[in-house]
Amino acid sequence: MKRIALGVQYDGSAFCGWQSQPHGNTVQDELERALSEFAQTPVRITVAGRTDTGVHGLGQVAHFDTELDRTDSSWVRGTNAFLPKTISVQWARPMPDEFHARFAAFERTYHYVLYVHPVRSPMLAARVGWVHTPLDVDAMRAGAAHLIGEHDFSAFRSSQCQAKTPVKHLYQIDIRQQGDFVHFRFRANAFLHHMVRNLMGCLVYIGRGRHPAEWMAEVLASRDRDVAAPTFMPDGLYLAQVGYPEQYAVPAPHTGSVPWSTVWTEQTES
Amino acid sequence: MKRIALGVQYDGSAFCGWQSQPHGNTVQDELERALSEFAQTPVRITVAGRTDTGVHGLGQVAHFDTELDRTDSSWVRGTNAFLPKTISVQWARPMPDEFHARFAAFERTYHYVLYVHPVRSPMLAARVGWVHTPLDVDAMRAGAAHLIGEHDFSAFRSSQCQAKTPVKHLYQIDIRQQGDFVHFRFRANAFLHHMVRNLMGCLVYIGRGRHPAEWMAEVLASRDRDVAAPTFMPDGLYLAQVGYPEQYAVPAPHTGSVPWSTVWTEQTES
Repeated sequence: MKRIALGVQYDGSAFCGWQSQPHGNTVQDELERALSEFAQTPVRITVAGRTDTGVHGLGQVAHFDTELDRTDSSWVRGTNAFLPKTISVQWARPMPDEFHARFAAFERTYHYVLYVHPVRSPMLAARVGWVHTPLDVDAMRAGAAHLIGEHDFSAFRSSQCQAKTPVKHLYQIDIRQQGDFVHFRFRANAFLHHMVRNLMGCLVYIGRGRHPAEWMAEVLASRDRDVAAPTFMPDGLYLAQVGYPEQYAVPAPHTGSVPWSTVWTEQTES
Repeated sequence: MKRIALGVQYDGSAFCGWQSQPHGNTVQDELERALSEFAQTPVRITVAGRTDTGVHGLGQVAHFDTELDRTDSSWVRGTNAFLPKTISVQWARPMPDEFHARFAAFERTYHYVLYVHPVRSPMLAARVGWVHTPLDVDAMRAGAAHLIGEHDFSAFRSSQCQAKTPVKHLYQIDIRQQGDFVHFRFRANAFLHHMVRNLMGCLVYIGRGRHPAEWMAEVLASRDRDVAAPTFMPDGLYLAQVGYPEQYAVPAPHTGSVPWSTVWTEQTES
């Protein structure tokens, strides 16, 4: 039995989230079906992050076990041949038995892409969030600074969250403006359910001047979901990267496939 | 009676082309329905370029006549409120009676966006063309040079083309590489049906080394559709700009709404 890891990208707007559902139409359902067709035997996969409906995968990682002996590129091309155009396997790599897509991960990075313009972008419908009035980016940065560190993030936690603890370590929030877009990058050991969308809701409130930057510290300290802003739309949210110990040499996601993600690899200052 | 011009953007993959069809689901059907709902009276529109199924609008222009007195921004916001997320009116502007979205236009610009990578981009499915092997961009530029000028473009004309003459003046073809993308820009007085997609088919043949650059001159001279390459996929094709006499002061399209179109407004050399 061999363990294979996969890098997966998908347009979340085409699916009812990652996790398998009785009625199908999830990324997991499609990926297991495609792998099983290619392998000609049932394949079950385990994923790093079970994204919600409408949330996109840019650097999603999954693993499965198989008796089959195929080259890495054969897994990629063979599986992609059976996948819809809105999902693609970007890489495949054999892993030691102890590798686990979810439990070996020590860090997750999410991107949120916000289009700021009076008129929405039809070409990016469901791919970016949209705000029709200008945002104060410096105020949002000041608000975000209150969140960095190890905290009880209960104020940003969905009532359906199944995490064992609301305490997470948020390492970094970067905010960059480029043209009509504001790009957000969140890096943490792990995130609670709806946490990034709830943080986005509060950051946009601050950016619009509805609350001062210091309000973020109050929301955090309250540990009360009712104090925070409503959950922001999923449209611009991307699971961008999952961090694993170096020994596994997990390939970096190919951000070049999504032009608006390259903002984080360009030589610009945040 | 007042004549109003509109700038329109749309994701062509969501519609069966521009032109109204008995079964609906075209951009014209949706736009006329939205305008009529907002105006509370039937509105019929005339368009600069009737794009095919799967072809996108970035700088599409249309006009209609109305008795109603509304501000420009009211037409924009009011109509967008009734449109699906995959279409948006970008601007509205009153025009003199003699303005005509189609007949006043003296120039059209199309963009083609090609993703060149072994694995397709699921986030840009139906938004970019895809080639999985590297392309020789210099060879494609040399091939494109043979097309510039006033020529009989019958070799690149669909059998369903209704143009009065196959003679068009192709002013410019620019090709730029950026990351994993190759961007094409075609500027002409007018284009035949499927002309850009047929030109793209030939350019990609040359880029792949299947024919030398000089082959383009042979194809052009043959005036024979059977000599050219097959019609290339519509996915990456955008009606980018329509040129009108200066007196009409038609606003430039807002390319900032489509991140991969800004390659043409950046300070880079082609």
